[in-house]
Amino acid sequence: MTAPASTVIDTPIAEVDAFIGVAEAASTAWRAATIAERGEALRAVADGLDARADDLVALAGSETHLAEGRLRGELKRTTFQLRLFADVLAEGSWLDARIDHPDADYPMGAPRPDIRRQLEGIGTVLVFAASNFPFAFSVAGGDTASALAAGNAVVLEAHPGHPQLSALTGEIAAAALSAAGAPTGIFTVIHGKDAGVHALRHPSIRAAAFTGSIAGGRALFDIATSRPEPIPFYGELGSVNPAFVTRSAAAARGAEIAEQFVASVAGSAGQLCTKPGVLFVPTGSGVVDALAATVLPAPAPLLNDGIASGFRRSLERTAQHADVAVLTGSPVAESADPAPALLRTTAAAVIADPEALVSEMFGPAALVVEYDDEAELVTAARLLEGQLTATLIADESDAIAAELLPVLATKAGRVLWNQWPTGVSVTWAQQHGGPYPATTAVGTTSVGTAAITRFLRPVAYQNLPDALLPAALREANPLGIPRRVDGVLRA
Amino acid sequence: MTAPASTVIDTPIAEVDAFIGVAEAASTAWRAATIAERGEALRAVADGLDARADDLVALAGSETHLAEGRLRGELKRTTFQLRLFADVLAEGSWLDARIDHPDADYPMGAPRPDIRRQLEGIGTVLVFAASNFPFAFSVAGGDTASALAAGNAVVLEAHPGHPQLSALTGEIAAAALSAAGAPTGIFTVIHGKDAGVHALRHPSIRAAAFTGSIAGGRALFDIATSRPEPIPFYGELGSVNPAFVTRSAAAARGAEIAEQFVASVAGSAGQLCTKPGVLFVPTGSGVVDALAATVLPAPAPLLNDGIASGFRRSLERTAQHADVAVLTGSPVAESADPAPALLRTTAAAVIADPEALVSEMFGPAALVVEYDDEAELVTAARLLEGQLTATLIADESDAIAAELLPVLATKAGRVLWNQWPTGVSVTWAQQHGGPYPATTAVGTTSVGTAAITRFLRPVAYQNLPDALLPAALREANPLGIPRRVDGVLRA
Repeated sequence: MTAPASTVIDTPIAEVDAFIGVAEAASTAWRAATIAERGEALRAVADGLDARADDLVALAGSETHLAEGRLRGELKRTTFQLRLFADVLAEGSWLDARIDHPDADYPMGAPRPDIRRQLEGIGTVLVFAASNFPFAFSVAGGDTASALAAGNAVVLEAHPGHPQLSALTGEIAAAALSAAGAPTGIFTVIHGKDAGVHALRHPSIRAAAFTGSIAGGRALFDIATSRPEPIPFYGELGSVNPAFVTRSAAAARGAEIAEQFVASVAGSAGQLCTKPGVLFVPTGSGVVDALAATVLPAPAPLLNDGIASGFRRSLERTAQHADVAVLTGSPVAESADPAPALLRTTAAAVIADPEALVSEMFGPAALVVEYDDEAELVTAARLLEGQLTATLIADESDAIAAELLPVLATKAGRVLWNQWPTGVSVTWAQQHGGPYPATTAVGTTSVGTAAITRFLRPVAYQNLPDALLPAALREANPLGIPRRVDGVLRA
Repeated sequence: MTAPASTVIDTPIAEVDAFIGVAEAASTAWRAATIAERGEALRAVADGLDARADDLVALAGSETHLAEGRLRGELKRTTFQLRLFADVLAEGSWLDARIDHPDADYPMGAPRPDIRRQLEGIGTVLVFAASNFPFAFSVAGGDTASALAAGNAVVLEAHPGHPQLSALTGEIAAAALSAAGAPTGIFTVIHGKDAGVHALRHPSIRAAAFTGSIAGGRALFDIATSRPEPIPFYGELGSVNPAFVTRSAAAARGAEIAEQFVASVAGSAGQLCTKPGVLFVPTGSGVVDALAATVLPAPAPLLNDGIASGFRRSLERTAQHADVAVLTGSPVAESADPAPALLRTTAAAVIADPEALVSEMFGPAALVVEYDDEAELVTAARLLEGQLTATLIADESDAIAAELLPVLATKAGRVLWNQWPTGVSVTWAQQHGGPYPATTAVGTTSVGTAAITRFLRPVAYQNLPDALLPAALREANPLGIPRRVDGVLRA
């Protein structure tokens, strides 16, 4: 079951260079492969992972301390995602194929030539794996799936929190890709921070994707953008995911809201990028009493020591703020496995010092904010940094909702109504990304089918003979895909 | 006809801050405006410019030295573009509306919630105007049109090469927007480099667009990406636009190729970002003789002194290379108005020193490169930096074409066959942008309808009551736009 020890030592720099060289050649062949070939290869990876599910889940459990049920669910999500991208490829609108026929009387004032445009793979993509989803945001996760689907080679830096699992997943994926006929070297796992940073600076790397902390992500973003040839860096960094409870909702169902909020905060020991970290509730409402009376989950081990010490630091920093008190749970480190905690403050304090109080605590903790007037919700929302999600717990008759929703839409990539932000569904309409620091590329998502767009670039062909055009752009539409022809979308 | 002198002094920093403050409020209102309202306002700007065409063209001529015919054509293109974006708005697929209905049996392993996603305006956009298209890439040009269409406020730094024209265009546009009911301050023109750089650092600026030199664009890109909150920077910087003539094409129609090439090089005195700056031809072919015998256009004034001195520097640098000779014309500055020039070298020299030889000369000059073997074309193409365009002059029976085209597609945003790259049509399928340094954002275009995407960001709404959803996402599809519903595109 275990991967050979040699695969989890740091990858030597010379080997990184060699991998990237092979990946460059592989990406050329892969970009030229048919959509069907690419789709089959993605399905083969999914099948390979499913066939080794027991081994993978056991190894993941031993390296991450996540519960088996959660890990099995995550693996299912991961293989679903790989197969979904195969479906996406076949459907074909990801190509954004556009055909403009020649027009001698084009009203622009000059004849229009024949121009045909599609999206194509960007080259070799560097992916930095995340710690908290050892399957879905790691070796064979969403970034890898979407980058491979787009026709790129992938070099992935394993997260040091689950090196053995990363090595095994990488072996399974590479073997499945190879058996499905994908070019040699289309997917490589490397280990070690130096290896990853070296790869990020390599001229053959054309884009990078990252999921992790603000500090780590920003450092890599700065490297990517200060290269002689800057490259797109798709970082999903941090988010507090504020939730706002209106007065009427709190009055109608305070206990239910409290229960659901705690479940969302404490799931996966709070180690989710969409964990609701701040909850605005009316002063004196039943929600606070219900939260204070909540039996919090028992202390649980976090993913690794780095996450645990980071959590304790952020929790203590918030707890020591002059305007913050403990609502329930323990705000200090009592053991190696941190206990859940809820802190409390007021909306006035948040409005006075948003930077200190609305700050991510990556682990099982959250800040409950009491407000006197619903207008404070709008004021506080306007002070927010960029978020992955923002949640409104409200009734349709609440006047504040219509005022608050457009503000939340400018702050977050996903706005929820009477549901909680954890549990990110992989769908066509999903959006996982928001203004900085939620993401470094505000127009993009790292979950859902639109994630493929990050690793594509447009190429227009002018006046080409039909036989020399890419298949998606030939007059007869041999792929049978949706296209925009002379401005008209034909699905 | 002239704008008041007070509008062309540098904008004081305090005034820049005030403009941005008003723009922020305006963008909130504008984002909430209907598609029809935004479209009407764009058409009003076009009408306003058309009504003042004589004044605008005269002023542009006096400030840029461009010919009246060229300027009238460019203004027509500019107003066409504004109206095209109004059409784009109404068509609605720019919203990329996606609806996933709830699905209790979603095969991901967890129920799928109701998620609906659209693209929305990003906020206030800063545009840096270009020198060489005083209409189409300046105050009311493509960046402004697409950013306003997307629902954003625009603050535009005028190019110092045509300050009076910028002021007048800005007045006409602002008056038309206001008369059409757009919010006050939705569009402001500022003057001066300090004003522009200050604006680029302002936290309320959410994206920036630029067309100009590599050095200038990179400096601004570095500012944009090193902000505490980095923002997208859409820079269109520089391009050599190589053209490759196969042996058979050169043999069949050498004189015609030479004539078309010179016309493309010398149009607008070579001051076009898509000017073909390097032409590969077979050694000893008739193309070179035809080029040597060409009567080049007379010296013409360039846009301004900065452009003229930059052109002379780049031309002299290339001409002084040990492997470069003069083919025809003058490689040195004989007067204030530079004479056109064609230089010559060999493919072997280019392959040995691509950086020095494949380098933009912004003005009426180009480098003719003689090759012995068509395989050298592929080798040279692989060494290219990113380009806006790459051109292949060939016959369909040329074996080299199938080999060269996929390489050119990785290097350029637009690949042409037996046509020349100057004259960029504004269409649905156009692509004006390529890998760095052609653009700083490889996945985007600054010409054509897809340019609107640069100034949009996705927002997903989960479980919202229908009445609180944006119009594009309501169940009944009140806008009648194309949408993806449960994964199926419905045009």
